Amino acid sequence: MATLEKTLYVGAFIHCQDLTTLDICSHGIIGVDESGKIAFISRETKDKQIPAREGWENAKVVSITGLGFFFPGFIDTHIHASQYPNAGIFGKSTLLDWLNTYTFPLESSFSDLAKASKIYNRIVSRTLSHGTTTACYYATIHVPATNLLADICHAKGQRAFIGRVCMDSLAPDYYRDESAATSLADAKACIEHIRSIDPHFDQVSPIITPRFAPSCSTESLNSLGQLHKDTGVPIQTHISENLQEIQLVKDLFPNSTSYADVYDQAGLLTSQTILAHCVHLTPEERKLIKTRQAKISHCPASNTALTSGCAPIRSLLNEGLTIGLGTDVSGGYTPSILAECREALFTSRHLFMSSSSPSSSDGNGNGGTPSIKREDDVKLSVEEALYLATRGGAKVCNLEHRIGGFEVGMDWDAQMIGLDVVGDDYAAGEGEGVNGKMDFLETGIVDVFGHESWDDNVNKWVYGGDDRNTLAVWVKGRLVHSRGGRRGLQTS
Amino acid sequence: MATLEKTLYVGAFIHCQDLTTLDICSHGIIGVDESGKIAFISRETKDKQIPAREGWENAKVVSITGLGFFFPGFIDTHIHASQYPNAGIFGKSTLLDWLNTYTFPLESSFSDLAKASKIYNRIVSRTLSHGTTTACYYATIHVPATNLLADICHAKGQRAFIGRVCMDSLAPDYYRDESAATSLADAKACIEHIRSIDPHFDQVSPIITPRFAPSCSTESLNSLGQLHKDTGVPIQTHISENLQEIQLVKDLFPNSTSYADVYDQAGLLTSQTILAHCVHLTPEERKLIKTRQAKISHCPASNTALTSGCAPIRSLLNEGLTIGLGTDVSGGYTPSILAECREALFTSRHLFMSSSSPSSSDGNGNGGTPSIKREDDVKLSVEEALYLATRGGAKVCNLEHRIGGFEVGMDWDAQMIGLDVVGDDYAAGEGEGVNGKMDFLETGIVDVFGHESWDDNVNKWVYGGDDRNTLAVWVKGRLVHSRGGRRGLQTS
Repeated sequence: MATLEKTLYVGAFIHCQDLTTLDICSHGIIGVDESGKIAFISRETKDKQIPAREGWENAKVVSITGLGFFFPGFIDTHIHASQYPNAGIFGKSTLLDWLNTYTFPLESSFSDLAKASKIYNRIVSRTLSHGTTTACYYATIHVPATNLLADICHAKGQRAFIGRVCMDSLAPDYYRDESAATSLADAKACIEHIRSIDPHFDQVSPIITPRFAPSCSTESLNSLGQLHKDTGVPIQTHISENLQEIQLVKDLFPNSTSYADVYDQAGLLTSQTILAHCVHLTPEERKLIKTRQAKISHCPASNTALTSGCAPIRSLLNEGLTIGLGTDVSGGYTPSILAECREALFTSRHLFMSSSSPSSSDGNGNGGTPSIKREDDVKLSVEEALYLATRGGAKVCNLEHRIGGFEVGMDWDAQMIGLDVVGDDYAAGEGEGVNGKMDFLETGIVDVFGHESWDDNVNKWVYGGDDRNTLAVWVKGRLVHSRGGRRGLQTS
Repeated sequence: MATLEKTLYVGAFIHCQDLTTLDICSHGIIGVDESGKIAFISRETKDKQIPAREGWENAKVVSITGLGFFFPGFIDTHIHASQYPNAGIFGKSTLLDWLNTYTFPLESSFSDLAKASKIYNRIVSRTLSHGTTTACYYATIHVPATNLLADICHAKGQRAFIGRVCMDSLAPDYYRDESAATSLADAKACIEHIRSIDPHFDQVSPIITPRFAPSCSTESLNSLGQLHKDTGVPIQTHISENLQEIQLVKDLFPNSTSYADVYDQAGLLTSQTILAHCVHLTPEERKLIKTRQAKISHCPASNTALTSGCAPIRSLLNEGLTIGLGTDVSGGYTPSILAECREALFTSRHLFMSSSSPSSSDGNGNGGTPSIKREDDVKLSVEEALYLATRGGAKVCNLEHRIGGFEVGMDWDAQMIGLDVVGDDYAAGEGEGVNGKMDFLETGIVDVFGHESWDDNVNKWVYGGDDRNTLAVWVKGRLVHSRGGRRGLQTS
């Protein structure tokens, strides 16, 4: 990798101070050193002059032009890279039929490396363009394709956890591991490949990935738990997404007291475990997960699409659990964590509506509605959603000391957000861009009119923004995406 | 207005055959005459040769290049044009505090015509760029600004209903009509202005707009009902959005048997009435609305944002009520009907989850989940959402014989949708657009990989598409929007 130049990032920056508070600096400078780490943060540049600083006289300067701000890169704690071609295609299915109808046929085709290359290159470029600087990927059962995904993330510069999917049971004949032994051997093969390209798992890390309890034999779960113990490689899996699935786990593992206990008995429930979904956890499971310090990936778009349920995120946060956001492509339709923030906000509102007056849900299709006022126990705020997308996700990955916010010593995993201001001269026919056509390809769809506060602008971005507002993205100080057009990155 | 050229629209076209079925023609020609009406539809052009047709030898040709299709223009049956600057800004508010905190202060500022011009020009261009060919607008109480909105729609070519907001009661002193008499006079003034620019209300129509029962005196409601009777001008208002609001109506109108009855007693509940929200209607109200043949605008984004509730759309459809979609900017965060389709789909899924097992909602924030299998009574399909967005909206506006689908004799209110196919040569570094940068500004965010059916592509568009996929938009045969860039409209 090329050596980085010392760089000064100049302009507004915004990040999450804590779960409920944004730290908004309207004029600042963040100095990033040759190793991609934040060397200093200066909050006082109101005159827009860059103060001289010893050793930084010749640093490169990246400035916000127009209205915009630097924001920490997003962290997607749960995404199936291989399922990307199915994004948006799920019909009215629910989890178990969705797997058989849409998912297993697609995943099985990753024995074709050319196909895998096309899809994996695309999804990594796409997630980067949406500002995702770290992603926890599920691949497929195929070792070569999984290794290719690791290579692609390494080359494109995305911070990634790469999981070969382990599934030796209760899956179709055409798509499963031959045995617990081959499942383990293949998991090890992917770990060794990643060690060969990134010896300290500094940017790309393997992650042990039993698909979910129903598709793993007890022998396989136990051997993967042992692999974790031996190697320290983290773990990701699914839990408690759907009621039929939970019943299936009960039937398959009669000696376990709960779904979480299945993983715990196998040594798979540790502080390095990422549990996707957690929609229907029992109080006992919540306690167990908290005791083990395991982490939660909240995937609201997927949970709504497949009508799995609404995970009670505010309650889980109140209990002290650690939570990030996951797009769960392709149960989720979008690879954008910004869109997932909206889904988290709206899912929390639906949970509020349904949980505050169960009696108003009349079984004839009449909707629930809030009659009890305890919004803050259920509804998420924009600040909380952004916290889950950054600091929360960092904690889920055990990377909170390196990413998720802007602090001296942390890595520069960041995105530059641009918003467009509608000019006072804006009127029909004039100011409508090239050839009299509105240049919405360039501006994106967020319109700022000038009366807005910084908080308003953040709200507009979260509810209305898309990849057009993500002008540039860096991981560990390296530029990994910049959009084209006249708002594309300019440096001096 | 310039005379139109006879034009042949060549390529795939898709529209709603009925509530649950898409009519997909993968190769066709639609001929549109000089008056902007569909003269013929030919479904057989598989060899991509355009067959000769007498009288059409010299017609202009607009062809789909690449993967794409013509689709009917969207119909937004409920949008507050004046509230657009607040899109995405609502915090954790609910209806009544939202009005006082965010909405009335903004609307009152439309006494400033320069400000109104900027905002109205922008929102009309924006909705056109999202494929909205017909919009039912609420303006503000101001006559000059409301007339300006009509002028802008007329000039830009959008089909629109323009409502001056009538509110002479229970609104802040700084923003309300002086009396029922001035409210009526101002409503009439706007009707006369629109008559002066579009004598037959052919493209731009006035619409009588009592804001909602709580902000209108009985005298005002009665006089507006009489105005409707005298003029035949249609009506739009809000109903049954939020429980506090419903209680307020009960308190304010003790002589009415229901919220719907308030409007009915005033002569405001007719086949030309558009009722926004309808979240908590009683069975009696549903019957009354059906008897009067009044129409419903479903606004799911807004209803979720303000935690108003989930309107039981499938039940209302099953009862034979007429329903379209409304963005309800800025209760709703988006001016895109395509995004509103997603919200309708997800809201129906949340309603399914909360209504099918009320007992699983434990009051501790644990989510509801489906245990009873009757998805089709609650969940909407993509086809149904698109029907609401087109044919349903047309019926809501009493324009089903002119717009909403592709039939001979109907107006050419249409959009050209383009989707991008990821090439087989796609790989890191290559095929990533200008200067090695992914050209996602150009392609939009929907990726087609080549294995998809037409149905799959429609699903991908609905769940992942945005204005970048709307390459061009026509109203009554007139080009009213086309996007820039290399995918911009090409004609011969």
